[in-house]
Amino acid sequence: MKKRERKVDWLKGEGPQANIVLISRIRLARNLEKIPFPHRAGKEDLKKIILLTKEAISKEELLNDFYFLDLEKISDLEQQVLIEEHFISPIFAQQKIKRIIYINPSGNLSIMINEEDHLRMQTLMSGLQLEEAWELIDKVDDSLEKYLDFAFHDKWGFLTTCPTNVGTGMRASIMLHLPALVLTNLMPKIIPTIVQLGLAVRGLYGEGTETQGNLFQISNQISLGLSEKDILTKIIEIASQIIEQEQNARLNLKKGVSIQLYDRIQRSFGIMRHARMITSIEALELLSMLRLGVDLKILPGIPLKALNELFILIKPASLQKFFKEELDPLQRDIKRADIIREKISKY
Amino acid sequence: MKKRERKVDWLKGEGPQANIVLISRIRLARNLEKIPFPHRAGKEDLKKIILLTKEAISKEELLNDFYFLDLEKISDLEQQVLIEEHFISPIFAQQKIKRIIYINPSGNLSIMINEEDHLRMQTLMSGLQLEEAWELIDKVDDSLEKYLDFAFHDKWGFLTTCPTNVGTGMRASIMLHLPALVLTNLMPKIIPTIVQLGLAVRGLYGEGTETQGNLFQISNQISLGLSEKDILTKIIEIASQIIEQEQNARLNLKKGVSIQLYDRIQRSFGIMRHARMITSIEALELLSMLRLGVDLKILPGIPLKALNELFILIKPASLQKFFKEELDPLQRDIKRADIIREKISKY
Repeated sequence: MKKRERKVDWLKGEGPQANIVLISRIRLARNLEKIPFPHRAGKEDLKKIILLTKEAISKEELLNDFYFLDLEKISDLEQQVLIEEHFISPIFAQQKIKRIIYINPSGNLSIMINEEDHLRMQTLMSGLQLEEAWELIDKVDDSLEKYLDFAFHDKWGFLTTCPTNVGTGMRASIMLHLPALVLTNLMPKIIPTIVQLGLAVRGLYGEGTETQGNLFQISNQISLGLSEKDILTKIIEIASQIIEQEQNARLNLKKGVSIQLYDRIQRSFGIMRHARMITSIEALELLSMLRLGVDLKILPGIPLKALNELFILIKPASLQKFFKEELDPLQRDIKRADIIREKISKY
Repeated sequence: MKKRERKVDWLKGEGPQANIVLISRIRLARNLEKIPFPHRAGKEDLKKIILLTKEAISKEELLNDFYFLDLEKISDLEQQVLIEEHFISPIFAQQKIKRIIYINPSGNLSIMINEEDHLRMQTLMSGLQLEEAWELIDKVDDSLEKYLDFAFHDKWGFLTTCPTNVGTGMRASIMLHLPALVLTNLMPKIIPTIVQLGLAVRGLYGEGTETQGNLFQISNQISLGLSEKDILTKIIEIASQIIEQEQNARLNLKKGVSIQLYDRIQRSFGIMRHARMITSIEALELLSMLRLGVDLKILPGIPLKALNELFILIKPASLQKFFKEELDPLQRDIKRADIIREKISKY
């Protein structure tokens, strides 16, 4: 198992519509036959799941360069960083014992062992790439299936701990940056429509989290009774409409950038260049305005990649990892302002 | 009568304690014998006052280089500029007919004819210079007295329209910038003490105006029963105490500039360098923080004179005069941000 600088593929800021879509993500929930679900499994069961998966991964060419991290062996801070990078879920970090995460070298694939289900594999990509993400995760799934006996019911499909995942075991989501729709006050109309169409709208870290920095996560609610392709088609269709609305809203903003918006974007830039303490919530709002400013050509010359990097760096755990020290909230606000000033002052 | 670029002496930002005292001002109210007070005077009376004063001024060497502005002949905008420069009062600009203002070339002396009283002469100086201001205005008073018969009562002193001015006819005031006392929450304790000692505390444009930008005007309430020297001694004594308190508060801030204050000053600087619209109230607050930042050596290299110039330029009428066009409030906010950016980006 290799220890290296971890790559986070979705931070590249490339891919179609990367100016609006931050992340395309698909995860599949799988469980092994004849072993209890993790919340009912004993230590030996959990060990067995790890061993079986390890064997499968090592045998497959597609998977054998994955490295793994044992949650019992890494610090709480490192676990928080993994959450911020969207490699693991907050619930996974709470359990710790006999919990393993596999990540591929390019940082677009990961497999959590013993989260809510025995295996949760996911792809994370930059921009609108749900189909590409599906192709990739589907291959991973097929590869593992050669060696692992996944619990599957002819009528119900893949069996999972939570009934909402039964069927395909798939959750597909995209993370959208929608500042123009927020600024033009259209989100309160759009969100109920998305929900009516059977999708969920959430904040940055999934279920139950508030939207911050004009970021919205859209995902499928149910995975039963529909094929994977059906689910993806639906999400892509709805996402495309939202993206188009955001593009139109930005076009309208661009046609005659109101002085109010121009001022707000420039002030955000000024604050990022000068402030000496910035909370993570304010940083997300500032970054959102900068991202919009770049897209509207008000602030040209700042690459999306730099903004995405900051998007991670400003988060509490990633910030502490970067500065290689434990920081209390006030110290974090100061260091956050430092790193933002440093990264932004180049432009 | 010469027409020229008007000098405003107090903007120099020089003089003792100019980092705290923006303006020292003394005005004397005088009325001519046997002519009704302005609010009861007919047009012929007002004319007569103007003529008599004109004659006196032209005869005196100290005064004969004064130029005058006829309020009937200058635009409303120009009148507003004169108010912003503290040369005339808002009430004076409202009356207009047969109202004249004399100003000396160096811009530290002015005489309003037919304001509330027949003559209101004033000195405006930069920094704590009440004694110097008194010496100067006293000479002007003596000079005019040679030719003009001022209404004077042996028991009451100089007679004035408003009873609060009877006696010396003098009002002395200083404009103080007290950000450290405001930041350390001491002003709510200090203001009642000043009032108890018989002085008035007001905002930027005198009576009834709110304090903005941490600016406080302190002046004598009564002019009866005290000599000019007594009044001045009292104001200087109290002012010196307030100045000392402000200095101490700044010293304490300087000893360990809190990250919160450092952040606030730097943010103000960043906003001034980047914002695209700024209201006059916000501009005053930003300038106040910059002024403090310069004094605390957080933002060295910005001369007080530049900040004082902005202090006038940001005001609605002076701003329009500078850009030589009529501007609605939104346009003013935009142009205000423009001029602030331009002046501040040098540093």
